[in-house]
Amino acid sequence: MDASEGRGAAGPAAEVSEAAAPPSEAPPIKPPADAPPRRGFSRRRLLGAGAVGIAGLGAAAAGGYVVSDARSGARSGGSDTAAAIPFRGTHQAGIVTPAQDRLHFVSFDVTTESRADLVDLLREWTKAAERMTAGEAAGALGAVDGPIEAPPQDTGEALGLPASQLTLTIGFGPSLFDRRFGLAAKRPAALVDLPAFPGDDLEAARSGGDIAIQACANDPQVAVHAVRNLARIGFGAVAVRWSQLGFGRTSSTSRGQATPRNLFGFKDGTANLKAEDASLLEQQLWAGAADGTPWMANGSYLVARRIRMHIETWDRTSLDEQQAIFGRFKGTGAPKTSADADSAEFDDFEFDTVTGASEPVIADNAHTRLAHPDFNQGARLLRRGYNFVDGSDGLGRLDAGLFFLAYQRDPRKQFIPIQQNLARVDAMNEYVKHVGSAVFACPPGLSRDGYWGDTLFA
Amino acid sequence: MDASEGRGAAGPAAEVSEAAAPPSEAPPIKPPADAPPRRGFSRRRLLGAGAVGIAGLGAAAAGGYVVSDARSGARSGGSDTAAAIPFRGTHQAGIVTPAQDRLHFVSFDVTTESRADLVDLLREWTKAAERMTAGEAAGALGAVDGPIEAPPQDTGEALGLPASQLTLTIGFGPSLFDRRFGLAAKRPAALVDLPAFPGDDLEAARSGGDIAIQACANDPQVAVHAVRNLARIGFGAVAVRWSQLGFGRTSSTSRGQATPRNLFGFKDGTANLKAEDASLLEQQLWAGAADGTPWMANGSYLVARRIRMHIETWDRTSLDEQQAIFGRFKGTGAPKTSADADSAEFDDFEFDTVTGASEPVIADNAHTRLAHPDFNQGARLLRRGYNFVDGSDGLGRLDAGLFFLAYQRDPRKQFIPIQQNLARVDAMNEYVKHVGSAVFACPPGLSRDGYWGDTLFA
Repeated sequence: MDASEGRGAAGPAAEVSEAAAPPSEAPPIKPPADAPPRRGFSRRRLLGAGAVGIAGLGAAAAGGYVVSDARSGARSGGSDTAAAIPFRGTHQAGIVTPAQDRLHFVSFDVTTESRADLVDLLREWTKAAERMTAGEAAGALGAVDGPIEAPPQDTGEALGLPASQLTLTIGFGPSLFDRRFGLAAKRPAALVDLPAFPGDDLEAARSGGDIAIQACANDPQVAVHAVRNLARIGFGAVAVRWSQLGFGRTSSTSRGQATPRNLFGFKDGTANLKAEDASLLEQQLWAGAADGTPWMANGSYLVARRIRMHIETWDRTSLDEQQAIFGRFKGTGAPKTSADADSAEFDDFEFDTVTGASEPVIADNAHTRLAHPDFNQGARLLRRGYNFVDGSDGLGRLDAGLFFLAYQRDPRKQFIPIQQNLARVDAMNEYVKHVGSAVFACPPGLSRDGYWGDTLFA
Repeated sequence: MDASEGRGAAGPAAEVSEAAAPPSEAPPIKPPADAPPRRGFSRRRLLGAGAVGIAGLGAAAAGGYVVSDARSGARSGGSDTAAAIPFRGTHQAGIVTPAQDRLHFVSFDVTTESRADLVDLLREWTKAAERMTAGEAAGALGAVDGPIEAPPQDTGEALGLPASQLTLTIGFGPSLFDRRFGLAAKRPAALVDLPAFPGDDLEAARSGGDIAIQACANDPQVAVHAVRNLARIGFGAVAVRWSQLGFGRTSSTSRGQATPRNLFGFKDGTANLKAEDASLLEQQLWAGAADGTPWMANGSYLVARRIRMHIETWDRTSLDEQQAIFGRFKGTGAPKTSADADSAEFDDFEFDTVTGASEPVIADNAHTRLAHPDFNQGARLLRRGYNFVDGSDGLGRLDAGLFFLAYQRDPRKQFIPIQQNLARVDAMNEYVKHVGSAVFACPPGLSRDGYWGDTLFA
């Protein structure tokens, strides 16, 4: 980070503060009223047993309450699920990162018409995102660089909570590449407008958007806090177009994770691309330097679909029928062709197996068959979708379903043909309806000094 | 439980099954195709390493896949947050139970006009609720007592998940006491229709309801699963009127718990009634036998309010102003009258303290002052509310706020006067809007053979 770019949170006087702050394990002292804060704002240490010096913060002591090193604080204690995930790297975090339990996804419209303002925002966002993924506050709780009447630079609801494996992943939608910001020539060919699929019933208010941010964490308060603070920082330049919470992951992105269940009660997507599939990831997940869009090299394309599930109808369907639709056993998740007692979820699907009556055991219109790479020219997706329930629908039913998120190298060769296959004949279609849709180009990971979108705006 | 009342999940042949099932630690065997299941349906053991015998379940082997004792399975391993909370007792669980992290709350309209059907449903619900709170499935995954075309008696999405401290708490709304079910004479005087408060902007679709069920758990998938299965069981007799997920608790109901933060970033409600306050609970939480409604003795009254927070406006308010509105420091949660470095959240509020200019340090319109028992004839509430974010509001803002839940002995003496106090002059009113409202009479806890509502319908 370059301190000169700061929102005042890490201003030029940081060294003074460094000297004024007590050693991290020493008894707290009340910081001098005029001391700026140290770089970084540990949420956890801030409110630890030794950090009551914060109470000195008030009208007479704006800012200056940070008394410990943020990084060490966020990363020291706690289990893996509380740990921090590195923010920078070749690829963005939050794609092959083992899927966290909770999601807050937001899609923004850009409201400023100034390219410079947009780039400034992306730089600001990057700094706040890096802090928050490390378990720090987005900025100072009290004003630092302005009059004490200024609002806090962090909203506070995650104070005391660990990093919780928060990842923040950014993507750019097709609409960003219109005339406003001079980006039309940089629109990737793979960032197509998705075609209309049979059965689509899309709501504009739940679809599209110029910029998306996916916040995944093991604590939903941490994910919500991150999105809320990015929206706060973006005030005047972006507006929330839509946002979606997911309460439970439905995918595993690593072989070390158990496959969870969707709201049909099934395991699905067990043929998902996983972090360990190095050569498949190169072939099917990451955009390449030779793909025609240099700024997207090491990036990936994200398709988001809000899929409403008619769970009340599903719940009145027999187990037999449910299992036929998926082509799996509900209990274990094993293929229906694995009838042995030792069959298991990751058994191969034997699509050629037929019954005594010469019918395929896994029907021609079974979801698993239609979605399987064997029937899609080998195409796979990296899925990291989430279950949602957003209250009720006014018709006596829960507004529940799957917020489908899938990363891939090229939607033209992956999501689109697979979904055309499914939308046409999938036996599951009777129980689902796609009501939201969006596609985003997610740029590569950040270099040491990079900011979100730097390869695009450079 | 009375086996003769079962939905087939614990039918008369349970003893046969008991004999057929292997000892819980023995290697699994495939149960005979015609064996009914054992009583109880452990979600966790079912899918454990030793339970692959489930794969035998299919068209030819409906039901009969449960191979371990549910109770011991659910309660054996895991941390406290995964444990089971006892379902029966003097009071309903989910009130003074240490507040779990996640919420799914549902309000139903009763659609049947038959009192007998309603009572049957309450009995069915009780059995499923007791199973689910013990970490079991609501019923058999495969059909047991009917043809194999019957739907599963559990929806499956919580298979493999522990009890997660699930509590299910039922309440009856004023509308249940109309003419339909002959309950008018039993309506408690304390179950008043809440008056209109200044500033209320209530939506009918988010208010009221005949029956409410509060599902709290440390895993949201477990809470959602419980509500979804109760709704499934109720099909034809009740319909979902509204439902609300809460992703983070905002209250502590036990002194062993840290006070979490609401979406204003503050700790609030630290003067909350807590499980340890035995004599206060008798005075202010539990309805008494002499309160005029014998069926409610040891029950409590629940007020639910969906409070939308204008977080975007709040986020542009200075720290000074935010702290003045609450009468607290944001960082520690300490009263504004506790300026010492060792001040802390649970310091007493010194409402008489004035500044050098003879102004009260905690303003006359500060939230904490107006809500404090000292200014409400000693009235307190047991609060167990949750933060929510339900997407966006179509105006570029998050639909975020507090789902306020408060239990009390008599809303006429507690919630109503406190809220009248707040609605009139609370400085916080500029930043909140009450958009949903409901009140419910939550009956006492269940005896060994009791069912939800038995004291009311007896």
